[in-house]
Amino acid sequence: MNAHKGLDYRLFPAKWQSNIKRIRKAGVYSVQEEQIMKEIQGGITAVQGVRAAGVECGIKKPGGHYAEMMDLALICCDEPAIAAGVFTTNKAKAAPVIVSQEHIRDGKAQAIVANSGNPNACTGEQGLRDARKMAELVAGELNIAPELVLMGETGRIGILLPMDKVEKGIKMAAPKLSADGGHQAARAIMTTDTFPKEAAVEFTLQDKTVRVGGMVKGAGMIEPNMATMLCFMATDASINRELLQEALKSAVDRSFNMISIDGDMSTNDTAIILANGKAGNRRIEKKDDDYMAFCEALNSVTLSLAKMIVKDGEGATKFVELRIKGAQSHDDAKTAAHDLARSPLVKTAMFGEDNNWGRIMSSLGASGIEMDGATVDIWLDDLKIVENSVDSGCDEVHAKEIVKKSEYIITVDLKVGEADATMWTCDLSYEYIKCNI
Amino acid sequence: MNAHKGLDYRLFPAKWQSNIKRIRKAGVYSVQEEQIMKEIQGGITAVQGVRAAGVECGIKKPGGHYAEMMDLALICCDEPAIAAGVFTTNKAKAAPVIVSQEHIRDGKAQAIVANSGNPNACTGEQGLRDARKMAELVAGELNIAPELVLMGETGRIGILLPMDKVEKGIKMAAPKLSADGGHQAARAIMTTDTFPKEAAVEFTLQDKTVRVGGMVKGAGMIEPNMATMLCFMATDASINRELLQEALKSAVDRSFNMISIDGDMSTNDTAIILANGKAGNRRIEKKDDDYMAFCEALNSVTLSLAKMIVKDGEGATKFVELRIKGAQSHDDAKTAAHDLARSPLVKTAMFGEDNNWGRIMSSLGASGIEMDGATVDIWLDDLKIVENSVDSGCDEVHAKEIVKKSEYIITVDLKVGEADATMWTCDLSYEYIKCNI
Repeated sequence: MNAHKGLDYRLFPAKWQSNIKRIRKAGVYSVQEEQIMKEIQGGITAVQGVRAAGVECGIKKPGGHYAEMMDLALICCDEPAIAAGVFTTNKAKAAPVIVSQEHIRDGKAQAIVANSGNPNACTGEQGLRDARKMAELVAGELNIAPELVLMGETGRIGILLPMDKVEKGIKMAAPKLSADGGHQAARAIMTTDTFPKEAAVEFTLQDKTVRVGGMVKGAGMIEPNMATMLCFMATDASINRELLQEALKSAVDRSFNMISIDGDMSTNDTAIILANGKAGNRRIEKKDDDYMAFCEALNSVTLSLAKMIVKDGEGATKFVELRIKGAQSHDDAKTAAHDLARSPLVKTAMFGEDNNWGRIMSSLGASGIEMDGATVDIWLDDLKIVENSVDSGCDEVHAKEIVKKSEYIITVDLKVGEADATMWTCDLSYEYIKCNI
Repeated sequence: MNAHKGLDYRLFPAKWQSNIKRIRKAGVYSVQEEQIMKEIQGGITAVQGVRAAGVECGIKKPGGHYAEMMDLALICCDEPAIAAGVFTTNKAKAAPVIVSQEHIRDGKAQAIVANSGNPNACTGEQGLRDARKMAELVAGELNIAPELVLMGETGRIGILLPMDKVEKGIKMAAPKLSADGGHQAARAIMTTDTFPKEAAVEFTLQDKTVRVGGMVKGAGMIEPNMATMLCFMATDASINRELLQEALKSAVDRSFNMISIDGDMSTNDTAIILANGKAGNRRIEKKDDDYMAFCEALNSVTLSLAKMIVKDGEGATKFVELRIKGAQSHDDAKTAAHDLARSPLVKTAMFGEDNNWGRIMSSLGASGIEMDGATVDIWLDDLKIVENSVDSGCDEVHAKEIVKKSEYIITVDLKVGEADATMWTCDLSYEYIKCNI
């Protein structure tokens, strides 16, 4: 996988386009792109000054549908780092989200503790006390202030955390923290994920090697019964807090917010990044080329992780990129893409390998966006199947070949404007139901 | 089934509540309710002066998943009737919807032609010509003006109507029109429905016997591949056009718009009512007690038909009533109910007979409504399972017994206001996927 190739330059705000073009013209991207950013191994611990560990402490109950029984992850920086976070907007917010939001308020953090098997959600006052206790336990082991500890959890809602196991797990994990422990930590946050999800890239700023790495657990979950997305990232770039937050928010909007497994949003969704400055670059303080390069690296990591989530969606047999073009507004383009990605009829047609474009037309028409019912074009990969809202008369055999592939692109051109949006989704299969009953 | 029992008096606007109470006090409803409105047999042809027929003319292709091969229905009144309609707001509107909307503009209609097996949707100019031709063919057979013909169709989008078969069907159906043909017509609009759906009620206005009857085809469809809802109704009440339209709109909002199979809206959704005045009641011209009684009868028919759709939802094994209480606004209550009814995680938990209230909490929290994450109560039937957003500590065995039933009620009390809403939905099962691939 070449993470860099996955980047879409259109994702950058218009004001940056000239910079991008300039750099591309200079050959930095187009000719020597591998020099400027490359994918590396090691996940979150590819980043200098970051250690991690994963352990099994019994929070996950045996007999679940787990591919992995480790259930507690610890990540820490050698020193307090600049921290940014994006959290669920679900109003039934879980205790770990509430505590993480409190702790990240000052823009600093040093450690992240995460567990799978129990989300500490809908657990009331006791849940909040447990979350604070968890931060204290980590702080005690690492000899840091509890306010420097962030957390993320996932599992079946409504059950109190087994604090004895959590305490045991934290005490087991602390001495295991190591500079190659990222993979263990990524395994420990898996629930129904069938593989751990990690990504890391390396690029250069002022002759300094800078890295961004991270891990994620997938959405559309099973025994824990929650479609929780947890993403923990780190970078050794030096960057101020405001820009780190803005870069993270933007990266999340373009990746995790543009994938859909089943349309549900969790009580626990969390994306966090720690920036420890170990790379020694001149601190990024404004939206200059350095910031742009950092954003590109971060986008690359989040997009790679987001696509892994879709590919590992519960029961997913298809990975489909949905491109909406020609919308009147970016919001319309996003709405159309989201509605397609959520439609059970569209998703079961993907699973059934049925070129049923009528379901796409119907979903578009129902989405409430500005459109003309007589101007829609639809493509499967490069094959135009619908022209001006009617059958294009294309080769049915060719269309069938495309929908039989495990990955393909559906492009919709509404032809009522200039805005576009791209999303990634999977199909709705028997296996999804099996995973969720 | 006693359709009357299904009525919810809260559905009526507050200004009518006093009337209802007065009538109830007089014993008309509470003591002698069977006298004032009763369910009767005969569907749409229970209505005086309405004839119908259903025939098989080959529009449905053999080898589909059809329980019924009849595919063309004709309904007609002896004379032009007052007509009202509610149509899909899908912007990829099908040709029969466009033509029906043109024809109903003057508030009059005499006949309805419907077919299953092809929706004439996304068929461009040719589709429009075919729809107009269909009206002309019916008009020719019945010797009426084409503008008096309305139509509804359902099937897989994007294929031109086989007009030779349609013509044959119309010519077969016209001589078969009869005063007991409602059932045949109801069968002819079935697609993946496993049973025809009809309802009719009788009540008294000024000593005149008035009837409302109708048929519907279900939503969440399969081989035709569209979640189309078609509802054709008639009444022999005499009522002016504005009030008929308002009564229909209101009845649809309280019934078909409050059920959800899979959340998709079709290009072809249509609900039509013809009022021929044959009952001889004094014409309903204002929102008086007569209008209220008429609305109640109409609501009873649409609610019965709507519930039949849910019970016959593709792959449905559960019929669940969702009651949202204590919302800040009616819109919030509806949004919460709709989101629950659409959530794949909530619906698979129903199918899995899992008392997974965390998914309900998460869906509520994600719905964007005004709520307090710490005040939510949830009931299964009369068992409170969640109190103030945490586990109520109720008897798990009892909860399990309820979710194992084929019909039960989930009540959510948000405790942030006074507004409420009720919806009906079904579960998401393997069979749904099978129906739709």
